[in-house]
Amino acid sequence: MSARVFGHIAGYDEGSLFDSRRQLSEVGIHRPTMAGISGTPNEGADSIVVSGGYEDDDDQGDEIVYTGHGGRDPNTFQQTSDQLLERGNAALAYSCINGLPVRVVRGAARASVFAPAQGYRYEGLYRVDDYWHDQGHAGFLVWRFRLCKMERLSLLPTVLFDTQGQTAGETRRQQITYQRIIRDTQQGREIKALYDYRCQGCETRLVGSAGPYAEAAHIRPLGRPHNGPDSRENLLCLCPNHHVLLDYGGFAITDSLTILGSNRKLIVKQEHRISVEHIRYHRTHYAVQQ
Amino acid sequence: MSARVFGHIAGYDEGSLFDSRRQLSEVGIHRPTMAGISGTPNEGADSIVVSGGYEDDDDQGDEIVYTGHGGRDPNTFQQTSDQLLERGNAALAYSCINGLPVRVVRGAARASVFAPAQGYRYEGLYRVDDYWHDQGHAGFLVWRFRLCKMERLSLLPTVLFDTQGQTAGETRRQQITYQRIIRDTQQGREIKALYDYRCQGCETRLVGSAGPYAEAAHIRPLGRPHNGPDSRENLLCLCPNHHVLLDYGGFAITDSLTILGSNRKLIVKQEHRISVEHIRYHRTHYAVQQ
Repeated sequence: MSARVFGHIAGYDEGSLFDSRRQLSEVGIHRPTMAGISGTPNEGADSIVVSGGYEDDDDQGDEIVYTGHGGRDPNTFQQTSDQLLERGNAALAYSCINGLPVRVVRGAARASVFAPAQGYRYEGLYRVDDYWHDQGHAGFLVWRFRLCKMERLSLLPTVLFDTQGQTAGETRRQQITYQRIIRDTQQGREIKALYDYRCQGCETRLVGSAGPYAEAAHIRPLGRPHNGPDSRENLLCLCPNHHVLLDYGGFAITDSLTILGSNRKLIVKQEHRISVEHIRYHRTHYAVQQ
Repeated sequence: MSARVFGHIAGYDEGSLFDSRRQLSEVGIHRPTMAGISGTPNEGADSIVVSGGYEDDDDQGDEIVYTGHGGRDPNTFQQTSDQLLERGNAALAYSCINGLPVRVVRGAARASVFAPAQGYRYEGLYRVDDYWHDQGHAGFLVWRFRLCKMERLSLLPTVLFDTQGQTAGETRRQQITYQRIIRDTQQGREIKALYDYRCQGCETRLVGSAGPYAEAAHIRPLGRPHNGPDSRENLLCLCPNHHVLLDYGGFAITDSLTILGSNRKLIVKQEHRISVEHIRYHRTHYAVQQ
């Protein structure tokens, strides 16, 4: 089997239609003929099929909250146990933390304005923006992935350039994608100033040529479906390392403001009231062990 | 004087025309009547005027390489000494590392297809994407700032939401902007795998719920005007903290691969040849002391 391809498949533009999963597999848009996620935990996910098989998916067009696989009875299709961060789920999480593009295919078997009338449609490249776990409709743990259309990202001042391929004389055109975007808000700037840019996790204070640098991290994330507020009690001043750990489930906080799995206390100024509700939301949806 | 306003000024859409610097100042689009940069090192820059006064500016429309101020003879307008990272220059650098939006005004006194026919035009919000120093045309050090139009960024899956203002019952609409975007490339993924996601600066290896996380940092940056290549000899595997320091002049590397200002060696695998040329480019343009 040839190497896994991330990105577009030559010859198949966005909007290309296919009759069957077999055809999608043959042309390489989505290779597995049954599984909804193509990929491995060590390479990342290269494609998914959004086909409405999971009641928990939420398709808003350019933004899709996709539910992972596992934990379902193969006959009844009902969720009967917790999903694990393994196989395709771990592949999608790998794509998130490494910024890999995912081909998205929509199938017709779906009550959605975005789905094709019949067969399957290649919908272009998406970026896995966030992953977390949640209680699914059936009461069991499911993993969720927010995918955002990348054509929007390619409108950024981006760089397309030529690199020499493996074969002498062959030139490949390579696109730069985005691994991570750090958001900025007014409240965030205020919380960074309050801590003088010192990390509440480790006391690190980074200083560049133009002064200190820190990031304001939202404990309960902004945006659908989390809808965390941009307010002081939902913000931490963190170094980039602790921000990454917070966002990707490597760092969580107990109700008594200690760092989960250590004896260290989060550094919190008296005038900074942190919401226990938001800390719990983060812990419940991002930490793997509780 | 009222507080410095970052972002749009109510009542003045992008494309608004003004007769004079005085008029720009009165409405608050650009308050200083002489200086090209409005702002302070501790608050950031809220606006600039691109008027062609500096021979070193490079205006490509949605991307502007803007040259800082200082070091010029007030009578001849010639560069006669090095610019320093102070006043407006430090304000623009602050806006860069904190992700603040900058109002851009173009003046007519400029041989540019992007300039208005006469007077001044408000061009909307830009983000300071990068700052570095360079040898200007006259041979003295100048500070440069790459500004990228933010309307492009606002096409990203962004979130507009309401927050309660200071005044009871008043609701403000607040926009989230982007402080920092981490780029991802194929070569970058390979360098991260080579180091198993361990930072070449400090040996940190971050691990989240789905595995390790590191960033591939281009020593000589990608994109105009640096045009660094996406190749192994121009890449480092860094933790996010060291990546920030590299990009913002807090971390530079000597020709013998030690970390400038310390005795520590950069961690480099035998099979990873790092280009001394690119290290010198970075040191020359980003480090403040050499």
